[in-house]
Amino acid sequence: MSVALSAPADYEKLLENYDTWLFDCDGVLWRGDHLIEGAVDVLGLLRQRNKKVVFVTNNATKSRRSYKSKFDQLGVEAHVDEIYGSAYTAAVYVSSVIKLPKTKKVYVVGMAGLEEELQNEGISILGGSDPADNTLEPFSLADFVRDPDVGAVVCGLDTKINYTKLSKAFQYLLQDKNCHFIATNEDSTYPSSHGLLPGAGSISAPLRTALGRNPVCTGKPASTMLDCIKAKINFDPKRAIMVGDRLNTDILFGQAGGLTTLLVLTGITTIADITGPNASPIVPDFVTASLGDIRMAEKAV
Amino acid sequence: MSVALSAPADYEKLLENYDTWLFDCDGVLWRGDHLIEGAVDVLGLLRQRNKKVVFVTNNATKSRRSYKSKFDQLGVEAHVDEIYGSAYTAAVYVSSVIKLPKTKKVYVVGMAGLEEELQNEGISILGGSDPADNTLEPFSLADFVRDPDVGAVVCGLDTKINYTKLSKAFQYLLQDKNCHFIATNEDSTYPSSHGLLPGAGSISAPLRTALGRNPVCTGKPASTMLDCIKAKINFDPKRAIMVGDRLNTDILFGQAGGLTTLLVLTGITTIADITGPNASPIVPDFVTASLGDIRMAEKAV
Repeated sequence: MSVALSAPADYEKLLENYDTWLFDCDGVLWRGDHLIEGAVDVLGLLRQRNKKVVFVTNNATKSRRSYKSKFDQLGVEAHVDEIYGSAYTAAVYVSSVIKLPKTKKVYVVGMAGLEEELQNEGISILGGSDPADNTLEPFSLADFVRDPDVGAVVCGLDTKINYTKLSKAFQYLLQDKNCHFIATNEDSTYPSSHGLLPGAGSISAPLRTALGRNPVCTGKPASTMLDCIKAKINFDPKRAIMVGDRLNTDILFGQAGGLTTLLVLTGITTIADITGPNASPIVPDFVTASLGDIRMAEKAV
Repeated sequence: MSVALSAPADYEKLLENYDTWLFDCDGVLWRGDHLIEGAVDVLGLLRQRNKKVVFVTNNATKSRRSYKSKFDQLGVEAHVDEIYGSAYTAAVYVSSVIKLPKTKKVYVVGMAGLEEELQNEGISILGGSDPADNTLEPFSLADFVRDPDVGAVVCGLDTKINYTKLSKAFQYLLQDKNCHFIATNEDSTYPSSHGLLPGAGSISAPLRTALGRNPVCTGKPASTMLDCIKAKINFDPKRAIMVGDRLNTDILFGQAGGLTTLLVLTGITTIADITGPNASPIVPDFVTASLGDIRMAEKAV
């Protein structure tokens, strides 16, 4: 059973109880190109009270640096080291969790943002935007020389997906049982500005099918994402709260990591999804209509 | 429990009991570019006894006409109308099973052989080898005009798979709940001459993932393939036998269709796969080392 917040004292108590605030972005801070009313004020209030603010997004095509421009464009204060995208957490997973030796390389099925994050972590990469692997020319195993230094395949959303990239990634994973198989996230689709398109989970699907095994995921709801955040910042999960609009990613992610969860209704989830006969089995701790509601804390006596 | 054939009378009885002989090709008639010893003689013996001979292959990149050249090259007598490839059965499924109206079109994720079979069945197609859809340029839904006449998406092995094709196929299936979703086969990999590569099942995986639903399959082991064969030729399943080298495609296919099954050990399956503690739950009716063994029938008194 979720607690529906409404009184100023409810929000004030939230501010008192949680030091680290993790936010999903789209559907929470903004919706497409429109800011959620009051979101900037609430972030300001949290910063004023010395709260740690963390932005958690499954977007795997953008580096944190380029994702920050979205914040800038909407006038939301954010620092690169507060932003955790699934491309970045994939890179952190490789460098800091599995600690891939520096002599090893990563074969990338993904775009420039993913490459940038991997390289920023000091990881050597193959594939990705390499013109040789971005082709619709026939692929033959006879002409393929496997690089013995590849120790991981990282797969994100890749709108230049093709048979050469898939076949190379497949070979690295098939021929070397120790080669790590990592996916930025499992989102089957993503909402483009004109509608749904295949997401990162659909791009890794051919590899999952051909190999008959699943990758480690570094995006929500996988707890690996939280492990990556913890590898970079120190916080007490008991005093941390995850704010999101999606039950099966954001709220599940928070719950899997032992965080308190707050659902906002400005995104994908409606009140019917959390109450009544068809309610989801995923139950957030708290619910409020909009992130902006937290401004009410200032009215608490 | 399978019956292991060995005596001339065993093989003679098989010839007496079955009028229609369905064969998998690779691993049964040939292995790569090498004929299985005695295979040509056995096919000759069957034809001499007026048996109906049917070749059943999951290969979806070749039309029957072009697949026949493989038979010709190895000196195996075969007629185009005896060959059932999964590209052809996909076309027959569209024309004769679901009976897609002639005003409708099929969006193709696949290669020339699949297009040829669909067109031979009088079906209008989109996608496939169309240069506009074989591109790594960015795809935007804003520029995409959905053809309202598309009534089915057919997906086979496509080594020119790309985001534009996947996104268009996804849109047709997402926007129209009545649009048929058909896959030639679910083979996750296929054995190229230099090793395993992603198969048709891996090419349809992004669509299955993005849509959260599975296609109708027109290849082995799906009984839909047999429905397509039955739509073209008339035979009594009780007097038909399926000969194959793979338990989870050929033998399962025969069993699902109520056919008798004969496993040969010249392909992927070994004796250890069908006997002992780790035996497969898929049990063929009969087993023999090689198709060539059937020549022994001539020695029966």
